Amino acid sequence: MHDVAVIGAGRIGSIHARNLAAMAGVRLAGIADADAVAAGRLAATCGTGVIGLDAAFGAGAVVIASPTPTHADFIERAAAAGCAVFCEKPIDLDAARVRACLAAATRASILLMVGFNRRFDPSFAALKATIAGGGIGRLELLSITSRDPAPPPAAYIRSSGGLFRDMTIHDFDMARFLLGEEPVGVHATASAFLDAVREAGDVDTAAITLRTGSGAIATITNSRRASYGYDQRIEAHGEAGLVAAGNRTATSLVHADRHGFRTDPALPFFLERYEAAYQNELATFIAALKGEDVAFPDGEDGLRALLIADAALESSRTGREVAL
Amino acid sequence: MHDVAVIGAGRIGSIHARNLAAMAGVRLAGIADADAVAAGRLAATCGTGVIGLDAAFGAGAVVIASPTPTHADFIERAAAAGCAVFCEKPIDLDAARVRACLAAATRASILLMVGFNRRFDPSFAALKATIAGGGIGRLELLSITSRDPAPPPAAYIRSSGGLFRDMTIHDFDMARFLLGEEPVGVHATASAFLDAVREAGDVDTAAITLRTGSGAIATITNSRRASYGYDQRIEAHGEAGLVAAGNRTATSLVHADRHGFRTDPALPFFLERYEAAYQNELATFIAALKGEDVAFPDGEDGLRALLIADAALESSRTGREVAL
Amino acid sequence: MHDVAVIGAGRIGSIHARNLAAMAGVRLAGIADADAVAAGRLAATCGTGVIGLDAAFGAGAVVIASPTPTHADFIERAAAAGCAVFCEKPIDLDAARVRACLAAATRASILLMVGFNRRFDPSFAALKATIAGGGIGRLELLSITSRDPAPPPAAYIRSSGGLFRDMTIHDFDMARFLLGEEPVGVHATASAFLDAVREAGDVDTAAITLRTGSGAIATITNSRRASYGYDQRIEAHGEAGLVAAGNRTATSLVHADRHGFRTDPALPFFLERYEAAYQNELATFIAALKGEDVAFPDGEDGLRALLIADAALESSRTGREVAL
Amino acid sequence: MHDVAVIGAGRIGSIHARNLAAMAGVRLAGIADADAVAAGRLAATCGTGVIGLDAAFGAGAVVIASPTPTHADFIERAAAAGCAVFCEKPIDLDAARVRACLAAATRASILLMVGFNRRFDPSFAALKATIAGGGIGRLELLSITSRDPAPPPAAYIRSSGGLFRDMTIHDFDMARFLLGEEPVGVHATASAFLDAVREAGDVDTAAITLRTGSGAIATITNSRRASYGYDQRIEAHGEAGLVAAGNRTATSLVHADRHGFRTDPALPFFLERYEAAYQNELATFIAALKGEDVAFPDGEDGLRALLIADAALESSRTGREVAL
Repeated sequence: MHDVAVIGAGRIGSIHARNLAAMAGVRLAGIADADAVAAGRLAATCGTGVIGLDAAFGAGAVVIASPTPTHADFIERAAAAGCAVFCEKPIDLDAARVRACLAAATRASILLMVGFNRRFDPSFAALKATIAGGGIGRLELLSITSRDPAPPPAAYIRSSGGLFRDMTIHDFDMARFLLGEEPVGVHATASAFLDAVREAGDVDTAAITLRTGSGAIATITNSRRASYGYDQRIEAHGEAGLVAAGNRTATSLVHADRHGFRTDPALPFFLERYEAAYQNELATFIAALKGEDVAFPDGEDGLRALLIADAALESSRTGREVAL
Repeated sequence: MHDVAVIGAGRIGSIHARNLAAMAGVRLAGIADADAVAAGRLAATCGTGVIGLDAAFGAGAVVIASPTPTHADFIERAAAAGCAVFCEKPIDLDAARVRACLAAATRASILLMVGFNRRFDPSFAALKATIAGGGIGRLELLSITSRDPAPPPAAYIRSSGGLFRDMTIHDFDMARFLLGEEPVGVHATASAFLDAVREAGDVDTAAITLRTGSGAIATITNSRRASYGYDQRIEAHGEAGLVAAGNRTATSLVHADRHGFRTDPALPFFLERYEAAYQNELATFIAALKGEDVAFPDGEDGLRALLIADAALESSRTGREVAL
Repeated sequence: MHDVAVIGAGRIGSIHARNLAAMAGVRLAGIADADAVAAGRLAATCGTGVIGLDAAFGAGAVVIASPTPTHADFIERAAAAGCAVFCEKPIDLDAARVRACLAAATRASILLMVGFNRRFDPSFAALKATIAGGGIGRLELLSITSRDPAPPPAAYIRSSGGLFRDMTIHDFDMARFLLGEEPVGVHATASAFLDAVREAGDVDTAAITLRTGSGAIATITNSRRASYGYDQRIEAHGEAGLVAAGNRTATSLVHADRHGFRTDPALPFFLERYEAAYQNELATFIAALKGEDVAFPDGEDGLRALLIADAALESSRTGREVAL
Repeated sequence: MHDVAVIGAGRIGSIHARNLAAMAGVRLAGIADADAVAAGRLAATCGTGVIGLDAAFGAGAVVIASPTPTHADFIERAAAAGCAVFCEKPIDLDAARVRACLAAATRASILLMVGFNRRFDPSFAALKATIAGGGIGRLELLSITSRDPAPPPAAYIRSSGGLFRDMTIHDFDMARFLLGEEPVGVHATASAFLDAVREAGDVDTAAITLRTGSGAIATITNSRRASYGYDQRIEAHGEAGLVAAGNRTATSLVHADRHGFRTDPALPFFLERYEAAYQNELATFIAALKGEDVAFPDGEDGLRALLIADAALESSRTGREVAL
């Protein structure tokens, strides 16, 4: 039986708390949140109690799902307490801060997993397995389509670090995960179509190209709005074939009339699309706690994705490819 | 908080017990099974205890998932105890026995829901809603495709009541559910391709046609084997359009090479395909317990489907359409 | 160079005339039609002339695309002239008349091909090849979906011989073609939803089941109206897998918005859906003229399909399966 | 009746000659080719004769389908003769030469259409119509996937002008056609995976990003090999929805077994995929000859696509975005 505490009682903290509560061999040690009411509500739902931060870091393992600016501090506190950490991305929006934090985690030899949940989506995991199993031969072109259904609130955007660090960072991690090698250069083109996004100094639409040493090329296209749902697709083209993972729908319904054949839109957003991914990533964290030999995104993965995001931002402003 | 006991610790009982254990507002009152070891194992998994039949019927609500020959007796014991019942189909293989049992339930005014789980599949429920909402105008032709991945063991077949009462009964219920009127005639053609099935005196392949008073026609095709997974599809053709619900797959993967584009097979069997349906049907049972105004298949639905199955069997032997 | 005359300048005659005119190694010998204006117009389009019936039968090969009541007479005149015949289905609506006509053709040893065009549809031909090549093992269940976009005019319906002889006859031929054995029994259920159809004494909706000696079962569902285009699908289920051929669309467009993903409706009607089939069947007729060893539907096939249609009509009136 | 001559009896000249021969209101005036045998063979197939260049330019309208280095000279000869021109792309690999040639055509006021056939593909034309009709609102992200089934011979590659001028030029034209505005910047990343391609000094894999003044972004990915057929897809993402045009297949077959559901590969190459497009573009040329108000790609379109190709090549070598 492994004790795991959850810090953060917001949307993503709730997902993790509920998944932990339902997991065999795990005891949800409590919920910690500056907002005691939110913590209490979530704790009640999950059959656990409200705890303070010290108690959380004393649980032996903690899920950090609090606001981004707290992540690095909390990892360092966990490191000091010898507590294993599952931390939502990003560790921090500043690469230097991330490095310092990772150094602390390394010195303390704590387990640190970063919440790149998409690696655990069944379709994307199967796509990775197909590539790794030689199903398409050498990977030559990778195309990632990632579009949110609607932009976040202006306040969120202003503190998000911008599209590349907030949204594309998932795609950068996925590109690294699938390419199997580090990108050596990045080029980005971006636009702001939405007034609220432009006024916040951010962009909402982007096309990014990653170049690798082997010659494999990855493209990412992002948009902050997609009328047809949360658009999450990946396509890998290799010398021997292609493997692609598309969107999922709520039902298998097809409705036909004189306008044609219509299926459901894509699942609405990440809660629905990545429901299984969130379960699988926590199960992997627990397996790692048990000492099983499982692969997971760690602090270094968190840092690398951030560095690509920083370079993409620079490229989008200069029009030049930026070396990584 | 509603107490619900589960009778039967087999495959289907386990599904229901786990779903009840995870449901908010429900207390799993215990597991009863003639096999105490199985009962204990399931109880431990679900955080409850082993109980006897009297205790089960004393819980106020019971899920009957024991072998078919026990169903009618257990419903009558529940009726005597004033206990609400969710019973797996069929109530009994003999229509007279079903009638007697339903009379007892009616006299005792207990809530009785029958486990026609497919009504609660999200895709089939959406199909029903489309028809009910006028999305295809008047329903004229209904086509149900229902194929198991592989035949059950010979021992199961021999006590199953035959293909029509064991497998097609689900399709008969679905036809009634979607047609919105009672069939007035049934015609069935059947074959036995598999040696084990033929030797058990049963058939493994069938085509059934149902006729209704309005002129709407339903066809059902069954097979006990489908190499490509559990094939569960429905298509409704109306004056203004068509609505169809197809199979579901484990992932959205598409793999392309010189042989073409390949997607996953259908989900393997009912545990996977109807995972959400099993949750939804129990949630509906609990809602009914709470007195909410929800629709669900009751004992009369169980009887009607059985009567069609009996008539289909007769038709398959005589080649004549049998009036209902 | 083969000379081929066309009798009939209507819709289907025009298709054949144009296909012949565009075919290498073929000389379109002329167009014959009681309506000289129509004949002249078609002849001009195809770069040929108007001819009389004697000249047509003197061409050595003739395509009969005149109204159904003339078919048998024209085949007999062709037989008398030693002229090869491609005849649109049906040869006649009366089985005795068909038998007499076929006897004349046989005595004269003329080549006689019947226009069951669907055998030559690329998708259905590939489906047949998959079955014949063992791609699904033994065929166990065959499902044919065949729906017209809209009912023909009332006048047409009254002289058509009824749904089974006019429309389902194509499906009966396809069932025979794909089953690879003769049906031994047929059961049909039919309804008339459309006033015009009912008033003409016909039906517009039907479900037919064919039984064979091996145990393979075929189902056919028909409707005279489908809001989403000409619905032409076949699915063959075998011990080792399934092969299906679906509808075709004019474009590959997918349009996504908050309502979902929408593709084109099915191609509008037979002219569009079977464009390639019409070309391929005439190419096969020409190959047969050249003495090549090609398979094609002959007079016997025309008769067999008609006999099944007659039996289906009887079954739909009696509710009993009719032996073939 | 319009007389049109064809210069070039190769693969693409043959397509055009056959399409002209089958077109109502057009007289194929003859085939001209330096290779008299090839010219004779094609002429015989099309029911026309072999002619010299002077006769071709004297026909009033000419299709230029000879090798690329001859295009500009032939356009100038046509201009001198006042002869309308349909010319295969590219006009020339050198932009200065193209400009001089276009000046001559403009001075002579001849009709000049360039063979960007993909604009006439039914699916891509429908996609364009959807965008133009407001079906997705403002266009924000355009994604073009264009992959050949296999690389051309090394000799062809060496004289082709390179991937961007030979292959991507079609995608550049399509991007301009769909964006409805001129790109202002281009960035390209390219790799050579194939030995034969690398040894010829060319690349076989590329990702290109186009930026426009409105903020709309287009991405193009190319490969010289796709094991699953000729991969030609376009996807347009707008503020109100998405419209995409996918690959086409030879049949609608779906084959299912334990490995899943398999459809046909994409059509093999441009002859098959763009069969209708080739017919439609020539029909448009003929309509333009008749003075009808039809839209078609002209010399300026040919030049613009070439200039983008030149800029993409420069970008792929410097890593910098190149202004257009």
